[in-house]
Amino acid sequence: MHTQTTSTNQTHRIATQTLDVPPRLLLGPGPSNAHPRVLAAVGMRQLSHLDPAFIGIMNETQELLRYAWQTDNEMTLAISGTGSAAMETAVANIVERGDVILVAVMGYFGERLVEMASRHGGDVRIIEKPWGEVFEQGEIYDAVKEHRPAVLMMVHAETSTGALQPMAGIGAICREFDCLLLTDCVTSLGAAPMLVDDWQVDVAYSCSQKGLSCPPGASPVTFGPRAMEKINGRRHKVDTWYLDTTLLRSYWLGDVRGYHHTMSSNMTYALREGLRLVAEEGLEARWARHRATAELLWDGMAELGLTCHVVNPEHRIPSLTTVSVPEGVDARAVAGRLLRDYNIEVAGGFSKLAGKVWRVGLMGYNSRPENVLILLAALKELLD
Amino acid sequence: MHTQTTSTNQTHRIATQTLDVPPRLLLGPGPSNAHPRVLAAVGMRQLSHLDPAFIGIMNETQELLRYAWQTDNEMTLAISGTGSAAMETAVANIVERGDVILVAVMGYFGERLVEMASRHGGDVRIIEKPWGEVFEQGEIYDAVKEHRPAVLMMVHAETSTGALQPMAGIGAICREFDCLLLTDCVTSLGAAPMLVDDWQVDVAYSCSQKGLSCPPGASPVTFGPRAMEKINGRRHKVDTWYLDTTLLRSYWLGDVRGYHHTMSSNMTYALREGLRLVAEEGLEARWARHRATAELLWDGMAELGLTCHVVNPEHRIPSLTTVSVPEGVDARAVAGRLLRDYNIEVAGGFSKLAGKVWRVGLMGYNSRPENVLILLAALKELLD
Repeated sequence: MHTQTTSTNQTHRIATQTLDVPPRLLLGPGPSNAHPRVLAAVGMRQLSHLDPAFIGIMNETQELLRYAWQTDNEMTLAISGTGSAAMETAVANIVERGDVILVAVMGYFGERLVEMASRHGGDVRIIEKPWGEVFEQGEIYDAVKEHRPAVLMMVHAETSTGALQPMAGIGAICREFDCLLLTDCVTSLGAAPMLVDDWQVDVAYSCSQKGLSCPPGASPVTFGPRAMEKINGRRHKVDTWYLDTTLLRSYWLGDVRGYHHTMSSNMTYALREGLRLVAEEGLEARWARHRATAELLWDGMAELGLTCHVVNPEHRIPSLTTVSVPEGVDARAVAGRLLRDYNIEVAGGFSKLAGKVWRVGLMGYNSRPENVLILLAALKELLD
Repeated sequence: MHTQTTSTNQTHRIATQTLDVPPRLLLGPGPSNAHPRVLAAVGMRQLSHLDPAFIGIMNETQELLRYAWQTDNEMTLAISGTGSAAMETAVANIVERGDVILVAVMGYFGERLVEMASRHGGDVRIIEKPWGEVFEQGEIYDAVKEHRPAVLMMVHAETSTGALQPMAGIGAICREFDCLLLTDCVTSLGAAPMLVDDWQVDVAYSCSQKGLSCPPGASPVTFGPRAMEKINGRRHKVDTWYLDTTLLRSYWLGDVRGYHHTMSSNMTYALREGLRLVAEEGLEARWARHRATAELLWDGMAELGLTCHVVNPEHRIPSLTTVSVPEGVDARAVAGRLLRDYNIEVAGGFSKLAGKVWRVGLMGYNSRPENVLILLAALKELLD
């Protein structure tokens, strides 16, 4: 144990430079650039996860999350991980081995719901739409009636395709058949209307690095009373300890806060600041801003002869547009030059849409007209 | 979908103040105060998780992690979550349903290994020591010989008790009985010698907010070749998608990086900066500094009539000391006054050590003589 006798391996003690980050404008599907106030907050000195001053910050963050989600759900909190961790929290807690789970798949994130629900023991049934389309309510009704699932899982804003699934009315179908509704809001929260209570959504999750303009790392989830009733009646513990809501609940909501994990004060500062910006702007104004910026993009694209992959404008995500790649254009090469020549990031499509679309995000702080102008100007240079 | 027709719930749109964080000196069991260079790095502008510039930063972070761990393991990376997420990554991947798992329990974190290994399907056997003691090699040898486990799990630095388990030689016992060795290094990495390769540790995990002086949120794990062989031969997928090493591997190590989750550039900047500080100082110097600062604390405590809960100095964690609470003193009241009157955080004991110890951390950047002086001076005021 005496250090002076230890001879250490120096192989991996590499020389590195002071961090010098290229000034990217992040117009892909996320992460998006954080708001400067958020970046100032994230670097503030730490508090411990059980400091009374930090508990106060957590409580404010929860309240602001309830506003952003439009819910009175007590069990509203942030997971210490990325949106994928929030997704797994939602799925792992709500699925018990043998439960019939119906997943409405219209893109990659629906497929991932299938994968996660299967891993956590669900008896998974699937209905599918082509990538870029959304479900009609009648299709959902028929499938729920046929499969009688314990949970219907669907994606609100499908980041892989740019399609925004209308959610109003689906909650009522689920209630009719005594089924829970779980919704992926990773790309919609803070950018498009998502009314958890009005739409009778029982479980929802999102991320911090898109519509909320924060770094990734503290990801919102909310569970309604019907979901908590199912979770409280589980016959088996949740597979995962880290994402177990019964443990998270005692930390986030207990009268005396029980130690679970070391919640990052810095990430919580960031999330709180991002949510304060949402509350200051107001949800209606924020949704209208995202929609207006998106329309500016769509109009400008049309002038360049570019079209949207999602045909119906009402079914497009206001914060993420999929642009069809014109015949004969190398999608990857254009995205590469945008990054190299202009420090602008957009993403390509993947899986079924590989090479067929670019994905352009105008999210949170980045949803501003000047970002549309610079992207269109750069695209014009590269496509001419 | 038209925003102007939506009337939103304003109940949770609370008024909040600009963040004003009290200037705590974090001398508890973690988080510890981050180094100022780390706090500067964490607030830098973002890169996306697949940006070539970010992949370069990930690669440097991996190399520096290998130096900190003293390992050549290819599968060395950071989990997007806290140390508890890294812990679950280690356990969930290495345990398959029905595996005999032996856990050497000498405190709370050993108990948590039991809990996690059970949730992931292990047939768990336990050997135990009183809280504050460590295992003799002979005890480990006999237990491995008796139970013939697939994996022996043990904690190197038991944060709940202050005891540092000698690890040299235990890897050899495991090899003799064809068993893997998994080690919790949450409180030792960057603060006390942890020689993954020399000590033949097959799986190890840690956190960022203790010996590495970062915020929580990007947590080191390393898997050796024998561990990867077991994982590659799994009959069932890992329960958890978020923490599945086969998916994490394609993101962290693939020639073409496969999308898995949105790794936080900000947290990676922070971890890289914390690890650069380790490389600049050198492990031997860093370990010696932690030990010297701890000895200063122990000597000063003796002058105040205070004793260490862990009797043998060689079995004390250099970055975390458990101080026995004197007869008749209210441990909780003293910790409360340290926080309120002097902005100094120390923690109490919990579970079997509730009310019996304080836990004092001098970790990473905070392992400095002036922090010992101020704590001793404040304790003198409060205990007189």
